Amino acid sequence: MKLSSTNLLLTAASAAVLAGGLQSCKSKAGGVSAASNDAAAKVYVAPGKHDEFYNIVSGGFNGQMSVYGIPSGRMFRIVPVFSQHPENGWGFSEETKPMLNTSHGFVPWDDLHHIALSTTKGEHDGRWAFGNANNTPRIARVSLSTFKTEEIIEIPNSAGNHSSPFITENTEYVVAGTRFSVPLDNGNTDVPINTYKDNFKGTVSFIGVDKTTGRMNIDFQLLLPGINFDLARAGKGASKDWFFFSCYNSEKANTLLEVNASAKDKDFIMAVNWKKAQAYARSGKGKKAAVKYAHNVLDEKNHTATSTIINEVLTLDPKDCPDMVYMMPCPKSPHGTDTDPSGEYIIGSGKLAATIPVFSFAKIQQAIASKNYDGNYDGIPVLKYDAVLHGEVQKPGLGPLHTEFDGKGNAYTSFFVSSEIVKWDIKSLKVLDRVPTYYSIGHLSIPGGPTAKPHGKYMIAYNKITKDRYLPTGPELTQSAQLFDISGDKMKLLLDFPTVGEPHYAEAIPAALVEKNSKKIYKIEENQHPYAAKGDNMAKVERKGNEVHVMMTAVRSHFTPDNIEGVKLGDVVYFHVTNVEQDWDVPHGFAVKGANNAEILIMPGETQTLKWTPDRTGIFPIYCTDFCSALHQEMQGYVRVSPANSNVALHFSTGTNKPAADVAAKK
Amino acid sequence: MKLSSTNLLLTAASAAVLAGGLQSCKSKAGGVSAASNDAAAKVYVAPGKHDEFYNIVSGGFNGQMSVYGIPSGRMFRIVPVFSQHPENGWGFSEETKPMLNTSHGFVPWDDLHHIALSTTKGEHDGRWAFGNANNTPRIARVSLSTFKTEEIIEIPNSAGNHSSPFITENTEYVVAGTRFSVPLDNGNTDVPINTYKDNFKGTVSFIGVDKTTGRMNIDFQLLLPGINFDLARAGKGASKDWFFFSCYNSEKANTLLEVNASAKDKDFIMAVNWKKAQAYARSGKGKKAAVKYAHNVLDEKNHTATSTIINEVLTLDPKDCPDMVYMMPCPKSPHGTDTDPSGEYIIGSGKLAATIPVFSFAKIQQAIASKNYDGNYDGIPVLKYDAVLHGEVQKPGLGPLHTEFDGKGNAYTSFFVSSEIVKWDIKSLKVLDRVPTYYSIGHLSIPGGPTAKPHGKYMIAYNKITKDRYLPTGPELTQSAQLFDISGDKMKLLLDFPTVGEPHYAEAIPAALVEKNSKKIYKIEENQHPYAAKGDNMAKVERKGNEVHVMMTAVRSHFTPDNIEGVKLGDVVYFHVTNVEQDWDVPHGFAVKGANNAEILIMPGETQTLKWTPDRTGIFPIYCTDFCSALHQEMQGYVRVSPANSNVALHFSTGTNKPAADVAAKK
Repeated sequence: MKLSSTNLLLTAASAAVLAGGLQSCKSKAGGVSAASNDAAAKVYVAPGKHDEFYNIVSGGFNGQMSVYGIPSGRMFRIVPVFSQHPENGWGFSEETKPMLNTSHGFVPWDDLHHIALSTTKGEHDGRWAFGNANNTPRIARVSLSTFKTEEIIEIPNSAGNHSSPFITENTEYVVAGTRFSVPLDNGNTDVPINTYKDNFKGTVSFIGVDKTTGRMNIDFQLLLPGINFDLARAGKGASKDWFFFSCYNSEKANTLLEVNASAKDKDFIMAVNWKKAQAYARSGKGKKAAVKYAHNVLDEKNHTATSTIINEVLTLDPKDCPDMVYMMPCPKSPHGTDTDPSGEYIIGSGKLAATIPVFSFAKIQQAIASKNYDGNYDGIPVLKYDAVLHGEVQKPGLGPLHTEFDGKGNAYTSFFVSSEIVKWDIKSLKVLDRVPTYYSIGHLSIPGGPTAKPHGKYMIAYNKITKDRYLPTGPELTQSAQLFDISGDKMKLLLDFPTVGEPHYAEAIPAALVEKNSKKIYKIEENQHPYAAKGDNMAKVERKGNEVHVMMTAVRSHFTPDNIEGVKLGDVVYFHVTNVEQDWDVPHGFAVKGANNAEILIMPGETQTLKWTPDRTGIFPIYCTDFCSALHQEMQGYVRVSPANSNVALHFSTGTNKPAADVAAKK
Repeated sequence: MKLSSTNLLLTAASAAVLAGGLQSCKSKAGGVSAASNDAAAKVYVAPGKHDEFYNIVSGGFNGQMSVYGIPSGRMFRIVPVFSQHPENGWGFSEETKPMLNTSHGFVPWDDLHHIALSTTKGEHDGRWAFGNANNTPRIARVSLSTFKTEEIIEIPNSAGNHSSPFITENTEYVVAGTRFSVPLDNGNTDVPINTYKDNFKGTVSFIGVDKTTGRMNIDFQLLLPGINFDLARAGKGASKDWFFFSCYNSEKANTLLEVNASAKDKDFIMAVNWKKAQAYARSGKGKKAAVKYAHNVLDEKNHTATSTIINEVLTLDPKDCPDMVYMMPCPKSPHGTDTDPSGEYIIGSGKLAATIPVFSFAKIQQAIASKNYDGNYDGIPVLKYDAVLHGEVQKPGLGPLHTEFDGKGNAYTSFFVSSEIVKWDIKSLKVLDRVPTYYSIGHLSIPGGPTAKPHGKYMIAYNKITKDRYLPTGPELTQSAQLFDISGDKMKLLLDFPTVGEPHYAEAIPAALVEKNSKKIYKIEENQHPYAAKGDNMAKVERKGNEVHVMMTAVRSHFTPDNIEGVKLGDVVYFHVTNVEQDWDVPHGFAVKGANNAEILIMPGETQTLKWTPDRTGIFPIYCTDFCSALHQEMQGYVRVSPANSNVALHFSTGTNKPAADVAAKK
């Protein structure tokens, strides 16, 4: 009874709010269209011309990153990260399967929410894009030169890895915080759920990033109360040694959180002095905990990934590390915590709050120095709200989520419930402008918006409800983004564009910082894959027990070999295909009929391997799956599979119908 | 030696051709930009406004279909068809896994090349989109109401299912032709590859389509020579009882086809009288052959797919069926065979030919009546080229691939090698206009272009090389489409837009024919899923041996139940999640930490099932993966997994911390 009435109430409430949101938008829709007369010219990128910005967008529940051009809103790539990608064999080829390994085994999917583009001195350096896996906690690093995922590291003692990945000013650390508290891996994990308050803990992990290679390692973890960490931002300038994490469910509810985690008027933003934490870790204040997590690395020397299981992590307990962690009260269930370009102002966005609190880093330091506390939370000092507050933006809108900056002293905050973006002055806290979004915006993105040096000009809204914005595609709809011009005093809507997956957060970066480093091909002479065939004359087929290894070349417009015999039922066939092309944009694809596997898509100079276990005897065609040349349709071949007891010898050839054995013998 | 020199020659040739293509385009690039000053306004669809056309685009090696808006070039959906789609659980949920079943077992990927939109009296009726799987031969049917794949049928006696799916005037049949000939399934399949000429056969399958339900069945197969069928089109009007198939590799080469299948000056277009074939099938002229293929159907009553293995197919041999099949000589290695809107003219596109032959259906009938033969090909009469030819377009360009029509007497042919589209007059055969494409166009698409009633106005080029057209994304680049205005005498380039996968062919259809039928939700009261929980009060957890079945509801903003205990190591847990929302665009997603599975994305009124085998004891969070409401972050829960020998009883609850057993007892 209680349940269903609660349910009805809340559903009705949410529905009313949404309907309200929609109506308010509807009534303004005409105005928007009228206001966008010059928009067409502003978003049009003429054929052959390039966009001004790369927009690196999280794929949400598709588990990938996608790359868009701004201002055109055109999508250039889906970069596979945490999910299998049949299109190019990611997670299907022997070389990439290890990238999706975890302590739970092979995981073919995840939920990538946030992007962090690497920075030096707080400014974009165009090197790497980091992304988080929410469901099976991991952090990924994508190269902005190859646009490939180079590394994935799993996070132990974690669940719902949502407060991730956010970075320090010089990308010294990527952080990962738990949205879902759980019992620590090395304790007793089989406990009643309703012992949450006693047994469930949160953690925040600091993952070191190598300056040169980008290689990640978990430097230390903070052991924290069983609270939900939502988002985070590092400080900048004066506050650069600090990291700020938004916290909700300070009620520590373990069921029906929509009610039970929304009881208190204030939750927290947690301030961490990461420099001090690092010093504690170095000075032996930490404890090593037994855990199990995977660290997966792609090596472009042989285009092959390896997965290593690691069994230990260093943990720091605030009880043993004074002056490392503080709590700041923040109204109510904060989603975003964002640091302005100067680093002085920290903005909290309480998604159930009617105000936006702006905290002052200087005041935070004073409050800490004078121990101006309001008690503690699980032993962590709580700073007095008034003592650390610069001020509040009054009645800005309903459901503030996230704030970014234009570098001109203005903040832009997204409002999910009232479905709008509000522009306000960081110092005066005055609201300057507001614009509706269609519909129910989550995050927003301004190029360089989270950095010390925003690039400004545009703002993109990532909206959660699409409804009638595009031609309908049945019950399942795209998610929608909206592009705004923020170069003037007033925000101007320019374009609606659809997105893939469920983009949550994104960053945009000037094309000039990335374009110049973009890799075109892999040099064939540098290919160290053990089964690479770097020319047709190196192609061969070898048997190792019941394994048949085909070292095959692909070049316009044939495979070598393209006729293979002597495979037997019970064999496992490995097609190691090397694309010997050395021109940009000449991939070859490879597939074999009936394989319980995807294709492989091989870039110039690369070797990829498709594993195939024939399920019957007969003739199996192979072909190039990528339209590579005028004679692409002719780029095919055949594999003969004989019975297990057959005496057909291993043969391979291309371009001759002589008994293949002769050809094999010649080599 | 022979191999590598051939290889070098051909590679050099292709490279030169491409380079030439690029240069010629480059030199015109300036002109193109200048000509497109008004293009911005023509392609801009203002926020909240809708595109004029749906463009249903094949995904090529991603195995899916994608839905674009024209003229904006915006992508609205990737519709999963032949490949697993982690984004929404296609091929991962228990309900959808059977859709990817084949006679080879579960196949997670394929290569979807061509789209056929259903027609009535030769005109678009907006009901279904058909697609082909090249690699493991199959045909799929997608509903244009739900934009879901409703049916997939495997094709026996086939390989390289490329000459598919093309349809007859009233969608009586979808055809599927073999690009790769192979030994027939019911014969001796373990034969030397160099016995190709004796043992390899081609087939063309005629798949019946139920007028009302769209349900497919293989009505009959034609047993044909070991030739490569490339593309096909049905006749129209006077020629509506006929089907035309382009054929290459009439040389019957089985290795290095780029050389050995390019020897003859002419290959064929095969003309099939399908009405007569149908009559032969009905009158018992066919033979039943033992085969094995899967027929997979999605039932929206319970949102669940079933897969049935079928063991027999009816085959027709032209030797037993006179006046059913004829060959028409066609220069050289024809790719496209296209029928003009009137049905009188059949255009062949010989990709290695210097002319475009236009055949006359009236002349074909005369030549057949007067047995005006030029010998036969494997017993199939070959009609005299001159006797059936309306005429040739002279020197139109290099590498003609495919032709469509505007309904005003004009034909538009794509040229891969010279990278251009040429407009010409069907009757006079005069070239009227030519426009470069960037770069190396494959197919083109005009809305309604292949039908009896083209909608005209726009033309889209699907190009194979992207190079410098967009911001670079490393070695792997998007494929690119280009939109042209064909409303005037001259073709005008309007827009470059990127595409996902590797689009080969597409159709475009007026929004008005599809939009009105688009389904918004599934009615919860019509949900017949055996594990559906249609309200929180119906939610429960049941144990059946080591299977635990969770009948769970999802509604803004909680799951019922959200606390589950009593699961033990060794159990297999089935989360049957019912989205009880009844508003459009309110999906809920579901995931559990560490699952070796994707998420499930559940549309309003739908039930989907995630299978999970816990790998350890402990507390596993569950959460909604789709940002569904202001309290979405609170939509989470926990599952406790205890040791196999544990005595923790099966408990479930939401909104109470009382011992769950009490709650369970109350129900």
